[in-house]
Amino acid sequence: MPLCTILTIGDEILIGQTVDTNSAWIGQQLNGIGAKVHEIISVSDNADHIKDGLRRAARQSEIVLITGGLGPTKDDITKKTLCDYFEVGEVFHEDIFENLKTIFAKRGREVLDINKKQALLPSNCQVVPNERGTAPGMWFDEAGTIYVSMPGVPHEMKHMVTNYVLPRLAAQFKFPHIIHRNLMLCGIGESSAAKLLDEFENKLPQHIKLAYLPDLGILKLRLSAYEVTTAEGEAEIDALYTEMKAILKEYAYAEEDIKLEELIGKLFLERGKTFALAESCTGGYAGHLVTSIAGSSKYFEGSTVTYSYDMKQTILGVKPETLEQQGAVSEQCVREMLEGLLKISKADYGVSVSGIAGPDGGTPEKPVGTVCFAVGDRNRIVTKTFQFFPRRMENIRISSVTALNLLRKFVLGELE
Amino acid sequence: MPLCTILTIGDEILIGQTVDTNSAWIGQQLNGIGAKVHEIISVSDNADHIKDGLRRAARQSEIVLITGGLGPTKDDITKKTLCDYFEVGEVFHEDIFENLKTIFAKRGREVLDINKKQALLPSNCQVVPNERGTAPGMWFDEAGTIYVSMPGVPHEMKHMVTNYVLPRLAAQFKFPHIIHRNLMLCGIGESSAAKLLDEFENKLPQHIKLAYLPDLGILKLRLSAYEVTTAEGEAEIDALYTEMKAILKEYAYAEEDIKLEELIGKLFLERGKTFALAESCTGGYAGHLVTSIAGSSKYFEGSTVTYSYDMKQTILGVKPETLEQQGAVSEQCVREMLEGLLKISKADYGVSVSGIAGPDGGTPEKPVGTVCFAVGDRNRIVTKTFQFFPRRMENIRISSVTALNLLRKFVLGELE
Repeated sequence: MPLCTILTIGDEILIGQTVDTNSAWIGQQLNGIGAKVHEIISVSDNADHIKDGLRRAARQSEIVLITGGLGPTKDDITKKTLCDYFEVGEVFHEDIFENLKTIFAKRGREVLDINKKQALLPSNCQVVPNERGTAPGMWFDEAGTIYVSMPGVPHEMKHMVTNYVLPRLAAQFKFPHIIHRNLMLCGIGESSAAKLLDEFENKLPQHIKLAYLPDLGILKLRLSAYEVTTAEGEAEIDALYTEMKAILKEYAYAEEDIKLEELIGKLFLERGKTFALAESCTGGYAGHLVTSIAGSSKYFEGSTVTYSYDMKQTILGVKPETLEQQGAVSEQCVREMLEGLLKISKADYGVSVSGIAGPDGGTPEKPVGTVCFAVGDRNRIVTKTFQFFPRRMENIRISSVTALNLLRKFVLGELE
Repeated sequence: MPLCTILTIGDEILIGQTVDTNSAWIGQQLNGIGAKVHEIISVSDNADHIKDGLRRAARQSEIVLITGGLGPTKDDITKKTLCDYFEVGEVFHEDIFENLKTIFAKRGREVLDINKKQALLPSNCQVVPNERGTAPGMWFDEAGTIYVSMPGVPHEMKHMVTNYVLPRLAAQFKFPHIIHRNLMLCGIGESSAAKLLDEFENKLPQHIKLAYLPDLGILKLRLSAYEVTTAEGEAEIDALYTEMKAILKEYAYAEEDIKLEELIGKLFLERGKTFALAESCTGGYAGHLVTSIAGSSKYFEGSTVTYSYDMKQTILGVKPETLEQQGAVSEQCVREMLEGLLKISKADYGVSVSGIAGPDGGTPEKPVGTVCFAVGDRNRIVTKTFQFFPRRMENIRISSVTALNLLRKFVLGELE
């Protein structure tokens, strides 16, 4: 398996001004095509330090992916340092300059001398087009190592990797053939899933790996089979995947890598239905997840975030005696919240959620982390109570994802 | 200035399963006390690779901070590898084991043999207590280099760094004396601020640095003065800081490092007042920011996320003719949203926001990124229209932060 080193350049990473999210993303992409990230090195905007990093990276890997330091300011010295490292000069690329002028004209800005320098590239590189910004990428093939220098701006870099770098690497290297199968889960944590899958994992053959990829209330399982080329081999993976699905049936929401809020969007668009939310402890985060999807206005009516008792009563018509006798965190309260929501909105379906996000507000009967949900339509309402983590932000996120998952299950007729 | 290398250990970082947020946080902390992160190296759970990383780190820096690989499972080999690296054996720590038993008893779990191993530590280390978890940290002082091995779990590591590692480093090393002055801004981007500060920055003396630390609609400026020990020196910084504040007066919301939503909380608690939100394009994100602060229920009534025309009418009483003639993204619409909000809620103040988050829905007069706001109380309402970025998530975040900032300005009587 060809090894790769990721070299990120920039003082902003070392002083903690920027969290390096690029490396994780690149790691995922490379892993997906069968290349392996051997090491990530983050160095400062210093020529000697960059050259030292390049040398080390080339010694230990066939592929060196470099991000950062390609901007027009004086801090950005990656290009000049690459020239020194390869002992070459710079060449002016007329077509890149023309492209720059077009981009600037569109933004109503003039091309300055400082920008003209962006069309100067090391003479030994091949241009990797940047369709999202002004700094072109550079591809070097020197002494048996591929070096690719890319901008640090995530959306520019990602576009380059997806459209140019991965296809070229795949053409040039012999990566192992990998088949990935994803299973998206909600409502179960990593360790609980691992417990249920204990026996299953123990019998996996050497060439099939299972990865747990948790993300805030969502757990992605990735079953990967290496170098499977026969029909028997594929049948074996199919059988294992089916077995894994059966074990986790209750928690699975998709077999492709898709966010829950995106899947909900597809589901409601397909059915031509709409929904609304009545939130309390989630404070708007459930609505945020839904509306983070472009086009959500086609199926999402809105959310009432009734944080106070008063707003629960005036907007949703929750009864004062319910709040007094059973409290805002009770199945009766979420039921009334949902009933009220379906009165004031035309939405076909609704979910309500109320809980104790913490750190204060817990009681012995209802400790911090207790969350009640109601989901339903104008014919039927189902209520549920869960006990989640006592940490505030985790609780808010898990409660929001759970609300959406209950909605999905209800709409699909899978909720008792 | 003593140099530090951060060594993060774990396959999950290299395959992109986990974004390494620890390193950025550690970088910020070290920078704050005058230590410098020279390099960040991420290596796999492989003994040779870890040892190679340790050797390189020790060659180039006086301090090596190590995270990850301290869990009880077979993947976690950091401790054993440190023993190999230092050529020492393990010692059983009775007090750590007793502590483990107490933690497990509280969680109602039994101590397994696998957990007992967590009390075995390299014989040459000093224990760094872990008050947030089960894996203790380790402090090594060998051949002129300090190595500190810590768990990768962020909240455990952070507690250790803050309470033990930074104070010990500060006692052992002579860090340069640094004075930091923060200025928190909202409503201005990095490049616009840099333009306004161009002249100011050019005249900064060598020993005073200005850092731009942007974070989703918020810009933190940090003015740092190195080795200032005289009263004249301090007076110089004071004068420069005052000058910088004057240039950016319009955008500054605080002189300490505090989130806008946290400041708003303090402001409303101090005044004993409450507020509510009426959101549209922000989809609940503004409410989420407010409720991410523990205790926000004391001053936050709630938010109505009226995504559809229908909910704008039924909940907030926006007039159909306003929606038809001027559209949902108009100052008249946000005014009616706010008026409606202040009718259905007892909140003292309110803010409403409606805009085009994109990618669709723009028109030549109202392109994607147009956002209208209304802020006020029962006596006075101010409306504003801004043109923000056309990318959906950025737009949602900037609109949310702007809504809160307008509220702050209104309450302080700074909004015309």
